[in-house]
Amino acid sequence: MQSLLIVEDNPRDLDLTLIALESYSDSLAIETARDGEEALAYLRREGRWLRRVGDDPALVLMDLKLPKMDGFDVLQEIRRTPKIALLPVVALTSSCESRDLRRCYESGINAFVVKPMNFGEFSKTLSFVAAFWLRLNRRPSSARTA
Amino acid sequence: MQSLLIVEDNPRDLDLTLIALESYSDSLAIETARDGEEALAYLRREGRWLRRVGDDPALVLMDLKLPKMDGFDVLQEIRRTPKIALLPVVALTSSCESRDLRRCYESGINAFVVKPMNFGEFSKTLSFVAAFWLRLNRRPSSARTA
Repeated sequence: MQSLLIVEDNPRDLDLTLIALESYSDSLAIETARDGEEALAYLRREGRWLRRVGDDPALVLMDLKLPKMDGFDVLQEIRRTPKIALLPVVALTSSCESRDLRRCYESGINAFVVKPMNFGEFSKTLSFVAAFWLRLNRRPSSARTA
Repeated sequence: MQSLLIVEDNPRDLDLTLIALESYSDSLAIETARDGEEALAYLRREGRWLRRVGDDPALVLMDLKLPKMDGFDVLQEIRRTPKIALLPVVALTSSCESRDLRRCYESGINAFVVKPMNFGEFSKTLSFVAAFWLRLNRRPSSARTA
């Protein structure tokens, strides 16, 4: 089964994301991390994920403003870690400052999506994100370079 | 007006792509290049595009098997050219070999989509590609690093 890692510290935004992706729940294992360190530990199979089995996620959907380690640093660490360097990472964030956009693209983000304020739009946006990244996009089978 | 650069040497596939994107024709300037060298010249504003005005495309949608210079080399040149390094590039290709996938991701492709064989599916796929990359994805305002 495909999996998706959502990295989000805001409980309301996390709930909205999970509700918006409910129609995928039979075909998708959704994992969540509440801060940047937890996301990296999950991806690198460290700490409590040392014995995590299964493939890497088909997509990492990540907020940028995160406790402990922000999304930019998580992204840079992903791209620096050979085993997970090629994972598709999409930023899902409430602000859209040009400096953040540039920094994300320079660090190798795959795409950058702004969270709409109202739930109807939020839900539609998440459906498009899921349709494109989980159904259409292809990635290296294990996304591993080593 | 947003623009999209389609890099495709197969006239049938190019026609299908243009038909599938017809509903965008009022809001999107669609440019086409028939080989890799032409695509790069367009993006770098060289040769007959020396005086091209307007923004860089919101998306480069590129076949991989191209005359003169293949899609991998075009992608690498884009990422090496500071003024266009951050452009979103999506591969749209008929084959999906794991070697090609890995090479694309290692060279900084944003996403990789396989062309469906039948037109209904092809058209639906292109609609999702357009909805995500032209409506939802944000990118640095001019995508320029220098």
